[in-house]
Amino acid sequence: MTVLRLTIAYDGTGFRGWARQREQRTVQGVLEGALQRFLETAPKLSVAGRTDAGVHARGQVVSFTADDVDVQELQRAVNAMLAPEVVVTDARHAADGFDARFSATAREYRYRIDVGAWPDPFSSRFVWHRPGSPSLAAMRVAARHLVGEHDFASFCRRPPDGSSTVRRLERLAVSRSGDRVEVFARANAFAHQMVRSLVGTLVAVGEGSRHPDEMPEALAARDRGVAGPVAPTHGLTLERVIYGRRVG
Amino acid sequence: MTVLRLTIAYDGTGFRGWARQREQRTVQGVLEGALQRFLETAPKLSVAGRTDAGVHARGQVVSFTADDVDVQELQRAVNAMLAPEVVVTDARHAADGFDARFSATAREYRYRIDVGAWPDPFSSRFVWHRPGSPSLAAMRVAARHLVGEHDFASFCRRPPDGSSTVRRLERLAVSRSGDRVEVFARANAFAHQMVRSLVGTLVAVGEGSRHPDEMPEALAARDRGVAGPVAPTHGLTLERVIYGRRVG
Repeated sequence: MTVLRLTIAYDGTGFRGWARQREQRTVQGVLEGALQRFLETAPKLSVAGRTDAGVHARGQVVSFTADDVDVQELQRAVNAMLAPEVVVTDARHAADGFDARFSATAREYRYRIDVGAWPDPFSSRFVWHRPGSPSLAAMRVAARHLVGEHDFASFCRRPPDGSSTVRRLERLAVSRSGDRVEVFARANAFAHQMVRSLVGTLVAVGEGSRHPDEMPEALAARDRGVAGPVAPTHGLTLERVIYGRRVG
Repeated sequence: MTVLRLTIAYDGTGFRGWARQREQRTVQGVLEGALQRFLETAPKLSVAGRTDAGVHARGQVVSFTADDVDVQELQRAVNAMLAPEVVVTDARHAADGFDARFSATAREYRYRIDVGAWPDPFSSRFVWHRPGSPSLAAMRVAARHLVGEHDFASFCRRPPDGSSTVRRLERLAVSRSGDRVEVFARANAFAHQMVRSLVGTLVAVGEGSRHPDEMPEALAARDRGVAGPVAPTHGLTLERVIYGRRVG
């Protein structure tokens, strides 16, 4: 047996998220189905980021153990079944003990917002159309308050198993080019709905309905009611998963 | 009565092209339907470029005469019905006598090709995935032969009414950035399937199955059989229509 590691990109529009669910079309479901046809046995996938319904990925990572196979052939076979909606962009053998979820040291997400007057037919599947003139300066002040190791209970769904919502948010950056505003977020891991809750709050700050200096208090409250609204799923993309030592 | 001019963008994936057809979903059909609901009368549209099924537009232009209306209100109403698949990006009054088709002095198209090993889920609706390593130098030599005023009968569908296939191809440029190859084409007007026939031929040249110096002969033959294959529709976008004096 050997450990295989796949990097995958997908358009999340047509899926009920990553995680397999009975009678729902999910990324895990179609990927496992394709792998099973190639491997002739059902693999047990570990995934770096369990994306929600409608969320996309450019650099999602999965791992599983299997009998040794030609990874190029596996990639070709799976892509022939699933591309261009789901694409295996890299397939390789990994070291024994590698696990896509537990070996990851950081995840990077990008949230795309179009603040122009009208949506763009060429990007609307992947971008939240939110016309306006948000203050990037205010959003950046708020972002600075949020970076660091905190209990993000105010900025995520409460875990049903009562597990910790403490995360180390390493970077939260806001940029703008033309009508496109992007929020880049990197953390050791994200709690459920955390990126979209951070983005929704930053947008509320940018639009003036929240004050950036309320953020420390919002964190301290550990109460979901105090954060801003949750931004819609389709603007969010899991861009990259980082393994090995944490860098800068 | 006044002449109105709309600039529209659309994702052509879900349409059987621009031109209205019985029982087919076309861009003209849905746009006329939305305009009719707003105007309470059916407008007669003139269009700059009758795009084929699956072809997209960023800067398509239509004109029609109507009772005077608030153009901002018209834009808002139509976009509320059709966006983000079809978006009116500009609405204005035009001079008397303006006609989107007959007043246009040039059309600009862009054809997008992804030459990487695997398709990209984020752009696959708008880009032809054609893995390989085409020679841009060869494509450019071929393009230089094709620019100018020629009878493009070898590079288009024969018009059923026997009308002329002479066009003035003002620019045909090939560029590459990473895995993305783009062909930019500007002409006073294009014959039916002409851009896709030019692109298909350039790709054949780039891949070595045609020689760039065969182009003058291919033009002279006025025979569709001698040109390369026609590139698929979904890589093509009508980018811009030019009115007024020809520039550059």
